[in-house]
Amino acid sequence: MKINEHFLQLKDSYLFATVGRKTTEYKNAHPDRKVIRLSIGDVTRPLAPIVVRAMQRAVEDMGRKETFKGYGPDQYCYGYDVLIDSIKGSYARKGVTLSSDEVFISDGAKSDLGNILDLFSADNTVLIPDPVYPVYVDTNVMAGRRILFADATEENGFLPMPQEGVKADIIYLCSPNNPTGAAYSKEQLRAWVDYANRNDAVILYDAAYEYFVQDEYLARSIYQVEGAEQCAIEFCSYSKTAGFTGVRCGYTIVPTALKRGGASLKRMWARRQSTKFNGVSYITQMGASVVFSEEGEREIAENIGYYRRNAAVIASCLDELGIWYTGGKNSPYIWMKCPDGMQSWAFFDRLLEEANVVGTPGSGFGKNGEGYFRLTAFGTHEDTQEACRRISAMLRRG
Amino acid sequence: MKINEHFLQLKDSYLFATVGRKTTEYKNAHPDRKVIRLSIGDVTRPLAPIVVRAMQRAVEDMGRKETFKGYGPDQYCYGYDVLIDSIKGSYARKGVTLSSDEVFISDGAKSDLGNILDLFSADNTVLIPDPVYPVYVDTNVMAGRRILFADATEENGFLPMPQEGVKADIIYLCSPNNPTGAAYSKEQLRAWVDYANRNDAVILYDAAYEYFVQDEYLARSIYQVEGAEQCAIEFCSYSKTAGFTGVRCGYTIVPTALKRGGASLKRMWARRQSTKFNGVSYITQMGASVVFSEEGEREIAENIGYYRRNAAVIASCLDELGIWYTGGKNSPYIWMKCPDGMQSWAFFDRLLEEANVVGTPGSGFGKNGEGYFRLTAFGTHEDTQEACRRISAMLRRG
Repeated sequence: MKINEHFLQLKDSYLFATVGRKTTEYKNAHPDRKVIRLSIGDVTRPLAPIVVRAMQRAVEDMGRKETFKGYGPDQYCYGYDVLIDSIKGSYARKGVTLSSDEVFISDGAKSDLGNILDLFSADNTVLIPDPVYPVYVDTNVMAGRRILFADATEENGFLPMPQEGVKADIIYLCSPNNPTGAAYSKEQLRAWVDYANRNDAVILYDAAYEYFVQDEYLARSIYQVEGAEQCAIEFCSYSKTAGFTGVRCGYTIVPTALKRGGASLKRMWARRQSTKFNGVSYITQMGASVVFSEEGEREIAENIGYYRRNAAVIASCLDELGIWYTGGKNSPYIWMKCPDGMQSWAFFDRLLEEANVVGTPGSGFGKNGEGYFRLTAFGTHEDTQEACRRISAMLRRG
Repeated sequence: MKINEHFLQLKDSYLFATVGRKTTEYKNAHPDRKVIRLSIGDVTRPLAPIVVRAMQRAVEDMGRKETFKGYGPDQYCYGYDVLIDSIKGSYARKGVTLSSDEVFISDGAKSDLGNILDLFSADNTVLIPDPVYPVYVDTNVMAGRRILFADATEENGFLPMPQEGVKADIIYLCSPNNPTGAAYSKEQLRAWVDYANRNDAVILYDAAYEYFVQDEYLARSIYQVEGAEQCAIEFCSYSKTAGFTGVRCGYTIVPTALKRGGASLKRMWARRQSTKFNGVSYITQMGASVVFSEEGEREIAENIGYYRRNAAVIASCLDELGIWYTGGKNSPYIWMKCPDGMQSWAFFDRLLEEANVVGTPGSGFGKNGEGYFRLTAFGTHEDTQEACRRISAMLRRG
């Protein structure tokens, strides 16, 4: 029996597992210290009341014979109409029209970003931004694909654009970006869409943070760009939009018009999911189905506003310290330069040991992340303010 | 961009999606008929009251800042200790000792049965029983692996045993079997375990129906056989045990002692899951965590008993009609021979059109399923009795 030897080429463990492990080890060794985590992109605000009520009703349904639900409906890979319709409505308000069979309910963008690769031959070249969410690289290393990197640096505002000499088959875009917070305009995305269509490539567009976009000229969905339906798959999540990191729900859009090698990627994904997946919990789907209602959007807007205020606090703190950063405006992440030219893991260690604050070292996201550091705005106000006080004190001490 | 061309070798669509589509088409064409489904293995009894209460508390937790939960704990791939401990306790009662890091909480056996294949090279020979749950074949066709079949027939009681001349790297066993209901004794499993260890193979053991086992000499877990921890991965599910088909929860056991090619499969699986999965809903895990409590087991035993009575009703009906069948005693499935030597899809069509009853044609599970038919015991008493009346009437009419 031959194992998949590509696994041997992976770094020891997944970035956030390492950050988590080092944090746990420190806490175990120093139980008296209050460690503040601005590291993993985990939310802290509770679910919106309308979501809680919908889930409570769904739990009651499951306890009664007359309203009990088993497997989700076959027709749309186990997605309930009420949820799919709410997602279509949300897209319509962004100027995008979808049909129900293009909307695939997932247990989160991370699962689908990994599993979509089942549809593609290992013999493809993948273009991945550097720095970016490490899952894109790791999942392709596991499959043995060739990886090229699109450099994101201060020079290009962390927004790489297509390069004519670079031939890629599968292109990852994450906008607003994790970890840098940089977000593409619709104009910039048009260049990527045109490039992908000219080169028979597929764009995997990670829109996990689109709800944080404030500026009108920035894209909320790649389908706001004409031609995207012929080349792009969009991955969305309720994790950051509605605080569903512990609930697990998202949606992946695979347009009818997206065909490669004569095959419909929509039909391939439906086949993959009906064979290797059994849908998302009824209770979860009912909770998700009210997120984009008027009341739902009002309630989640309060939570998003709460996180935005954290980002502003972190931004002020770095302004006062004279530390360069980007992000925080259309994104819940602040991407800062490590002080005194420190390497990012060295800064991680110092921040953890001296300030008892956890962030994520930029080099974990790619070579262009070296010398940078990610802080998240998902904590509580109190923790965020306290973390900023400690960071200031630490850096002022020198 | 090259698609995964192995998808072109798949049958048009997943078996149960086809059964569902034909059923929906018939119902749309005959809205006045009451169609009874004994087809897809979907449960009808509501969740146990103790599970409902646990989930309600968990939903409330998610609505309050102080008790809100984000991502699951890093340590055991997002599994909560309380759930993992309850699973370890359940195994202990079967004489099997597990450590927490061997227990991987899943969103159901189907997902993990598909995704486990990421750990293995495409260059392996897979041995799959025929007939069996179509997911095993389809997921390996998608990956382009060589497939051999282990014939399950009336002659061997639908329990194939290892053949010395047959060299396989990955062996699927499903016991109690879907669709035949046949279940291996511990002695018979020992032969498979010894074969796998001698041949450096891995057994993928699908225990989705183990809760239906009544006879003491039959296995509840492959780990009741010595040496299995060195060769087998066990896939379990709350779907049939606790009615979680619409809730989505299971657990996959990857033993520490299971090493192939010098690699620890447990560590590989942990890496795969931390990279391509983000865990199971907190609400779901809390519901699952009370299933194996004393009260939980009492309540699910009532539901299992309810389904067993349905199986007995179907068995009686077939006895009276003089139709050969197996299963139903240690399994929720009855595997019957199609009357008058009919082909299974022809019998499916006749049953749907004349009796308005839906079952699953045996040929959908493999070539040895031709001429056989699967009926499930998961319906209501009323529907099951009515279905049997209609089947009798139809066959008596000739």
